[in-house]
Amino acid sequence: MIVIKIGGSRGVDLDRFLADVPNVREPIVLVHGANHELNQVSEQLGHPARLVTNSTGQVSRYTDRRTMEIFMMVYCGRVNKTIVEKLQSLGVNAVGLSAMDGAIARGRRKERIRVVEDGKAKMLSGDYAGSIQTVDVRLLRLLLDNGYLPVLTPPALSTQGEAVNVDGDKLAMELAAALGADKLMIFTDTPGLLRDVRDESSLITHIPADGIEGALEVAEGRAKKKVIAAGEALKRGVGQVVFADGRVDDAIQRALAGAGTVIG
Amino acid sequence: MIVIKIGGSRGVDLDRFLADVPNVREPIVLVHGANHELNQVSEQLGHPARLVTNSTGQVSRYTDRRTMEIFMMVYCGRVNKTIVEKLQSLGVNAVGLSAMDGAIARGRRKERIRVVEDGKAKMLSGDYAGSIQTVDVRLLRLLLDNGYLPVLTPPALSTQGEAVNVDGDKLAMELAAALGADKLMIFTDTPGLLRDVRDESSLITHIPADGIEGALEVAEGRAKKKVIAAGEALKRGVGQVVFADGRVDDAIQRALAGAGTVIG
Repeated sequence: MIVIKIGGSRGVDLDRFLADVPNVREPIVLVHGANHELNQVSEQLGHPARLVTNSTGQVSRYTDRRTMEIFMMVYCGRVNKTIVEKLQSLGVNAVGLSAMDGAIARGRRKERIRVVEDGKAKMLSGDYAGSIQTVDVRLLRLLLDNGYLPVLTPPALSTQGEAVNVDGDKLAMELAAALGADKLMIFTDTPGLLRDVRDESSLITHIPADGIEGALEVAEGRAKKKVIAAGEALKRGVGQVVFADGRVDDAIQRALAGAGTVIG
Repeated sequence: MIVIKIGGSRGVDLDRFLADVPNVREPIVLVHGANHELNQVSEQLGHPARLVTNSTGQVSRYTDRRTMEIFMMVYCGRVNKTIVEKLQSLGVNAVGLSAMDGAIARGRRKERIRVVEDGKAKMLSGDYAGSIQTVDVRLLRLLLDNGYLPVLTPPALSTQGEAVNVDGDKLAMELAAALGADKLMIFTDTPGLLRDVRDESSLITHIPADGIEGALEVAEGRAKKKVIAAGEALKRGVGQVVFADGRVDDAIQRALAGAGTVIG
């Protein structure tokens, strides 16, 4: 059983990526993002993305209620259902869900966030974002056991039952761990983890499970976060974590054959 | 087992309607529309609804690909997931799906339609609308058998696997028949079927199964269409069809207690 995450960045052609799904023999849970399209639609609807920086320098999207409404339109409507439509046209019996459906993922909503704007610290309230605390994979197992391919997207549910914007990579990781996946494969618009983010030829091809600490010493920024997440997934029983290129033909099969950064 | 359809018209307050769901003991499949919101969002996105009239005078929405994209955003994203969020906050384990998911409903896409505009007959191509031909309720049964409440919306799948805009009432009826529902309850912004559409006090309270032919003689326009659909549902094994008011408190319980137009 494989959990596949496909990012929502500009560089990924979903149709091209999805064309490879029917070629994969193992059962799949597909998790997706839609970040680039959310920015576009928010702009079109006159409610452009507001990125905020917290006190430790991390940048995130401020998700007020209106943004959450647009988020649901783009992630759960436009992108999730376009993926389902595409897979169904390829003969794959896909079922599109958000992590709210069947209460698949729950997290704490951080309603008030501390941000730094124009050099000043301030509190912003009304945020619909949070971090995943628990997952319930019964619905996913039910679907997998009956031959369906679940296609999953944020938002998740808050402990009060509200929609919360959660990180898609984290969602994929939590599901892979809870399902005991053989592989967690994360596809983006790069060939994998790079030693130098400006140089696609600096691909790190393999990090053995016992080499993660060493890899953390050389990794930077987002790559570091990804290596930490991968190490966590391995510790929680996922067989292998792969970061691979989502922009190429036969992307999944190439990654199954060893392309990208293999961890574990 | 009850199939409930709640319309997407301006007069229905979904939160108020959904507050009654936890009070219902029987298993429910909920089908919804989102017509009013689709018009609003289409307008906001600079692609307003285009209504076309066919040669027999029937008015329908011309669903080009851009309209279908917005349709998926509004029906499957905004409205479907807002319903799921609301039900989850009420402790109901809802699962939101389109009729494409798990290939629940399939129909023929009428790619070219003959319309009359400015008194002239012409052909319009690129339409993503169709009529339901087959339904597959295995996924719904699986969810019901495991304690989930399915929340369903158009679009359905074409025979080629494309998204097609299908009638929500028809979808509810087909599902009720295939599931052998005890009741099919259709809630709108009127008290039920009216003898005179301009007079809410002219409610038809009951049409027995053997009185449908007689009722057809007095019904007009949309009411006639609804009576025909109800008769069809009864013939196909649905226990009872109810048209009731979706604008009131405890709408479902009132209708279960006999409010509205009961057919059968």
